[in-house]
Amino acid sequence: MQKAPEQMEFVELTPSAPIKTTTHGWRAKCLQRLIRLELPVPRTVALPCETVRAIAAGQYIDTAILTKLLGQEFLVSVRGSPENPEWGGPGTVLNVGMNATMLARLTETHGAEAAEALYLRFVQNYATHVARLDPDMFADEPGPGVLRRTLDVYFSEMDEPFPQDAATQLAHVLRSMARAWEGTTARLLRQAKGAPIDAVLGLVVQDMALGIGPGLSGSGTIQFVDSVTGSGQVTGRFRGQSQGRKEVIEALYLTRDPRGASLEEASPEIFAELIKHGAGARQKLREEMQLEFAIASGNLAIIDAVRVVRSSRAAVRIAVDLAEAGVIPREDALLRVEPRALSELLHYQVDPRAPRDVLARGIAASPGAATGKIVFTASAAQAMAARDEPCILVRRETAPEDIRGMHAAVAVLTERGGMTSHAAVIARGLGLPCIVGCSEIQINFRDRYFTGPKGRIFREGDVVTLDGSNGEVLVGAAAMLEPALDDGFRTLLHWADNVRDIGIRANADTPDDARTARMFEADGIGLCRTEHMFFDEDRLTVMREMIFADTPNDRRIALERLLPMQREDFRALFDIMAGQPVCIRLFDPPLHEFLPHDREGMRELAEALDRPLSEVTRRVDALSEFNPMLGMRGVRLGVTVPEIYDMQARAIFEATIEASQNGAPIVPEIMIPLVSAQREVEIVKTRIDAVAVAVKNERKADFTYRLGVMVETPRAALRAGEIAEHAAFLSFGTNDLTQMTYGLSRDDAGRFMGTYVNQGVYDEDPFHILDVEGVGELLLIGAGRGRNMRPDVTISVCGEHGGNPESIAFCRAAGFDYVSCSPFRVPVARLAAAHFALLAPRKGVPI
Amino acid sequence: MQKAPEQMEFVELTPSAPIKTTTHGWRAKCLQRLIRLELPVPRTVALPCETVRAIAAGQYIDTAILTKLLGQEFLVSVRGSPENPEWGGPGTVLNVGMNATMLARLTETHGAEAAEALYLRFVQNYATHVARLDPDMFADEPGPGVLRRTLDVYFSEMDEPFPQDAATQLAHVLRSMARAWEGTTARLLRQAKGAPIDAVLGLVVQDMALGIGPGLSGSGTIQFVDSVTGSGQVTGRFRGQSQGRKEVIEALYLTRDPRGASLEEASPEIFAELIKHGAGARQKLREEMQLEFAIASGNLAIIDAVRVVRSSRAAVRIAVDLAEAGVIPREDALLRVEPRALSELLHYQVDPRAPRDVLARGIAASPGAATGKIVFTASAAQAMAARDEPCILVRRETAPEDIRGMHAAVAVLTERGGMTSHAAVIARGLGLPCIVGCSEIQINFRDRYFTGPKGRIFREGDVVTLDGSNGEVLVGAAAMLEPALDDGFRTLLHWADNVRDIGIRANADTPDDARTARMFEADGIGLCRTEHMFFDEDRLTVMREMIFADTPNDRRIALERLLPMQREDFRALFDIMAGQPVCIRLFDPPLHEFLPHDREGMRELAEALDRPLSEVTRRVDALSEFNPMLGMRGVRLGVTVPEIYDMQARAIFEATIEASQNGAPIVPEIMIPLVSAQREVEIVKTRIDAVAVAVKNERKADFTYRLGVMVETPRAALRAGEIAEHAAFLSFGTNDLTQMTYGLSRDDAGRFMGTYVNQGVYDEDPFHILDVEGVGELLLIGAGRGRNMRPDVTISVCGEHGGNPESIAFCRAAGFDYVSCSPFRVPVARLAAAHFALLAPRKGVPI
Repeated sequence: MQKAPEQMEFVELTPSAPIKTTTHGWRAKCLQRLIRLELPVPRTVALPCETVRAIAAGQYIDTAILTKLLGQEFLVSVRGSPENPEWGGPGTVLNVGMNATMLARLTETHGAEAAEALYLRFVQNYATHVARLDPDMFADEPGPGVLRRTLDVYFSEMDEPFPQDAATQLAHVLRSMARAWEGTTARLLRQAKGAPIDAVLGLVVQDMALGIGPGLSGSGTIQFVDSVTGSGQVTGRFRGQSQGRKEVIEALYLTRDPRGASLEEASPEIFAELIKHGAGARQKLREEMQLEFAIASGNLAIIDAVRVVRSSRAAVRIAVDLAEAGVIPREDALLRVEPRALSELLHYQVDPRAPRDVLARGIAASPGAATGKIVFTASAAQAMAARDEPCILVRRETAPEDIRGMHAAVAVLTERGGMTSHAAVIARGLGLPCIVGCSEIQINFRDRYFTGPKGRIFREGDVVTLDGSNGEVLVGAAAMLEPALDDGFRTLLHWADNVRDIGIRANADTPDDARTARMFEADGIGLCRTEHMFFDEDRLTVMREMIFADTPNDRRIALERLLPMQREDFRALFDIMAGQPVCIRLFDPPLHEFLPHDREGMRELAEALDRPLSEVTRRVDALSEFNPMLGMRGVRLGVTVPEIYDMQARAIFEATIEASQNGAPIVPEIMIPLVSAQREVEIVKTRIDAVAVAVKNERKADFTYRLGVMVETPRAALRAGEIAEHAAFLSFGTNDLTQMTYGLSRDDAGRFMGTYVNQGVYDEDPFHILDVEGVGELLLIGAGRGRNMRPDVTISVCGEHGGNPESIAFCRAAGFDYVSCSPFRVPVARLAAAHFALLAPRKGVPI
Repeated sequence: MQKAPEQMEFVELTPSAPIKTTTHGWRAKCLQRLIRLELPVPRTVALPCETVRAIAAGQYIDTAILTKLLGQEFLVSVRGSPENPEWGGPGTVLNVGMNATMLARLTETHGAEAAEALYLRFVQNYATHVARLDPDMFADEPGPGVLRRTLDVYFSEMDEPFPQDAATQLAHVLRSMARAWEGTTARLLRQAKGAPIDAVLGLVVQDMALGIGPGLSGSGTIQFVDSVTGSGQVTGRFRGQSQGRKEVIEALYLTRDPRGASLEEASPEIFAELIKHGAGARQKLREEMQLEFAIASGNLAIIDAVRVVRSSRAAVRIAVDLAEAGVIPREDALLRVEPRALSELLHYQVDPRAPRDVLARGIAASPGAATGKIVFTASAAQAMAARDEPCILVRRETAPEDIRGMHAAVAVLTERGGMTSHAAVIARGLGLPCIVGCSEIQINFRDRYFTGPKGRIFREGDVVTLDGSNGEVLVGAAAMLEPALDDGFRTLLHWADNVRDIGIRANADTPDDARTARMFEADGIGLCRTEHMFFDEDRLTVMREMIFADTPNDRRIALERLLPMQREDFRALFDIMAGQPVCIRLFDPPLHEFLPHDREGMRELAEALDRPLSEVTRRVDALSEFNPMLGMRGVRLGVTVPEIYDMQARAIFEATIEASQNGAPIVPEIMIPLVSAQREVEIVKTRIDAVAVAVKNERKADFTYRLGVMVETPRAALRAGEIAEHAAFLSFGTNDLTQMTYGLSRDDAGRFMGTYVNQGVYDEDPFHILDVEGVGELLLIGAGRGRNMRPDVTISVCGEHGGNPESIAFCRAAGFDYVSCSPFRVPVARLAAAHFALLAPRKGVPI
């Protein structure tokens, strides 16, 4: 339904005009606020969104209205005013009202050159954006005769002269901008940024403040913080005798500059006025703003103001500074930083301004960037590290035996695998940049090179840069930006800690991990996987002796040699974590992961063990499994080969006693993996309790500990009630739980997960984003039944999902006590948890 | 609390005496019934269980009572009378009351030899069972002077003469029998047979009917059916001048016999009397009874009656005959046959009377027995079968490529695996006897022999017999009993069909399976696995071409060559099943199962496909998976390589049209495997619907079909509601569902399942007995949500568990429509379902 002309509304901006962001757009509201601050804003009229929509729909615009919009000065600008500045909108059109008459008048006051330039700019703008003519025909720079030629081109293309009536010009400009908002491209672009399907646009018509003319004239922008660091610093641009932001390309400079004259020197008064206006705008708009201004013969006009563009690092600093200055409450500061943006700050980044020679693309599996020499084996990586040369480990995919190589490398690249492949999980844990599933490269391990697209060959020792944040492998060493764990970062996260109501622990297997967890101020270790501890060469040998032991006693003898090493492992973790909770998962993987798989390895093993090769081959063969994920591992080993858990429990308890001597008593948490039946927990608990009694007696020392269960089979979730009878805590291992709930091996899912997500078969990769509907229901069932049986049972998630904001929201809503994630995801998790607590407070459930 | 003597109860059996099985035991009740029938039962007194318990507890037995028990004849027998005859009880003691006086009296009437024999038997019996002396000292056969010597031995062992007072003798006998019931061994034995912990014993004291004396005297047993076949036939034993069942060893024969005189000839009157008593007992006791009788000088006495011992086959025949004769209702006939006993009747059995040379024992994985020559490869089995020589396939474990070898063999033996290993599952499906997990043998494949315990070596071609019913491998060819699918069997199962309220379908992949399913009168095919159809040599080659195709089009071309073969597969099934429902599962296994795994196989494949070996190796390598169970299979193939399902759907529809021309229209059921998300079903459904439209148009024919989902991931069970939107039926694949719910691969579980079940970690192997608590809950959730969304959705189980009575009870209680199981388990399932329907009728849920 079209609006009758007399009903078409507009309103001149005054301090009391009824302007709202929802009806007139953010720009109209922002300009009104500047006017309330008594900033020298030229006369501005706002067209409400409803009116703009009517214009787009073909509504006739009455001449009387257009005349009022044009006002006394006859020259106006028109700007878009969407509800949210992020949603884009049509480009600004300046100098509406220019015609032969205005040209003559301005030639008198400002000179012919300036006047012609203004007219030319308007004609070009109008021709391309309103008349939609070919921009190439209207691209000439100002100069003698250019205006004339351009008006001739317009005439020949349109078969009519350039419109001379200002009202007609304005009507066409308004309709053109209103319609641009409805275009398909514009709609898709803004919806991608989160705009609703019915997002609307207002328009703002403002008297032109010409930055040209006699005396000090010009135009520019000014902001009061650095866009990259966020620290306070006046920065901006100024050009004398200019107009509009597009023109602001070179000096005169804004601030004192050795290269030439600056506004600050030319007019300290006007500069001071800008500084004052800036402070006012910050205070009133509660944000760091960039002001656009013009100076006409010494008279300052503030034309527009926009939120300062900022890096993630600057966003943190600005939010903290505004809060510390009392401009905004801390809660607002927290909500102004997007949690995922923090992960950028933890790592080196490829400088976005640097040139990039992309050699291949894969899945961005672990953020950050690193430069190093290519190596193809874990041992080569270790050798390289020993020479202090940064190296990048390139594998088809990684396996547990590559762990030490990954530790030695600065980044990891694999040809296969997905977001939750071994390489990706470990790299995220280590904070190493990592790209997986890089199927564009083909590795030749024998001759130690890989071939990229277009047959480019990269050999061992060649230098590449791996950008794990966007999945690109770059040729050579790219320019880098450093991590930004500065005071602002720490302050913000401390505020987050005061607000959040769910614990954030870190998954940490090594002292290095634990130190990272401490650095990122996790609430403890939620998952310490102990199997990685057995891949050191000296331990691996003993492990293998243990595996090949013929009797429980021989097994015990081998394990006794591992005991002091394990004790030291745990002692180190306890010391680093200084009394924070440490949750240790008992040995989990199948034993065959510790055995060699190739003939050469078996021959070496046979020699080392002094057994016939045939026997070694037979034993390795007998231990192999069809589906290791579903095989003899976790508590199944604990029940059938109990000596391993006995040793680990003893190591934990002895380390507990030693570590407790230095300070507060340690209360270790021991977690049983892969449980599927209550009786498994009973059996393991009985033995571990016995070990505890024995250690207490031997050492004449006392300690307490908490025994819990890793819930990672669907059955454990369903039977969580009876399992909780013997468990002080239940921690959901969502990686395995997802695998079993879907019947989907994450190591094998990579081959079709892309297709699946693209076709919408799964909304998301369930290994990446927690599957709330399926796995999530098992979490709710398990938590509910566990709590029902034992109200004080601690409930948590320790899978890869733990650090995702979506998972944190889910776990919080379900009343979980904590989530545990890779150390490098702890900051994101802390902030995300704070966001959820602020946006949807829950009652009476303290951390 | 001890009972005062005057309260100690006993009651003489008369037609109206207050005798109940629960208070006096089955024998007392049985004898009372014989008395009511006016059978000539000697005077009998029953001691109620309460009294017997008091005696066992030390209660004094008043002499007056003992005197009454002894009665006028002074010679009595004492028999146990437990509530249920299956529960055992103390042995009968005869001739209580024998002493020097009686010896003298009997010598007069019956002669010295008979009298001494009676006394000797009593002394021996008393010495060993009451005085608990060494049986070896009291083992002499009757003969001159033996009685004297035996009394001397008694004296010297007991330091007192053999008790001469009949009351004293009886008191000791009663106490000894009462206490024997309380012994640990007796208790464990009866509890193993299902007796409750507080099972009690009555005792029966009966005047001796001596089968010795002048005129026609003797004792014997008579029954009126054959114990092995159950058919009507008078059979039994008679010995003149004898006493008690133990004595009845040789003739005089009961019935006419060429070897000598018989009771039938000697006294047609008494024989006719026995026949008459037998008929009366059958009618009154509603059971086939064996009568124990004695004849003293031409006077017949019926001493006891017991249920005829019977084979499973006889049990069926007897139950059916009794029902058809109107003695019992059909419902009783059904309940009198234990369902699992039927499986014995379906197979050849090793004759239980034949000698057995057991060479090794394993897990009895598929019942029945077979004799054949050992072979070690599938191809050797096929070669042997081609020469019509029965062979037994011996493998470490079987894989899909062994299928044809298994078809060719008469039995299968594997060194590894459990009840649900590939070999076990397939063998049960084929009805082949099978032993798995036979770790006592060590196979040498290269030299084609295996070594059994004690180093016995068996080479290819050696004959062995495999008893899949008890897990024994026997040397050579053992004597066999034939299967018994006779009229009685069929009649009983038809009665079962009229009673049961849950459908029983068969899992059938081949025409042979389908014929077996028809033979056992399944309600249709509940699961037809199509992947086995692609292992024929000619098909395998095309399959591999399909797998190696570079484009969807090449893939389609290869599949077009498989289409006519698949169409014939389905056509054959439809024809055999003659309009009964056939549920076809679309292709399920990972593609790598169809590729060679060894270098030689790959070389052959490369040659066959005319591609470089390196490419074949690379492709095979790329398709390999860490956890095939959780990998690229089932609907995941259907979504990513849709051409396979397209071809299968077309083959099904074309076969449907062809098969429907001969009779009633076929309505095929198409089942999608390994679903974990609703969208998978939508995608496959869309394509299959399109194929249906295309086939209808091309063939100018109409048909309907039902599309459903195999629920075998926990997520599918949880999301069954939305999945049912697109599924006409949900069939739970409990094999995979169990694997995923437990996180346990059935192929790998064998290594520790024994330990787990023995230690009670799991109550039962969950692959054998449905895990009601975990997997069962998912079944209930899935069925409930499915029905909630779509009340008419068909719900069933098609996993290995389907045929277990426990699973049938569960599925019935949950309101499932049918279960599907191996064809050879169908009869057991039909009968079990009838049992549950009779024992716990449910309302208003027809099949």
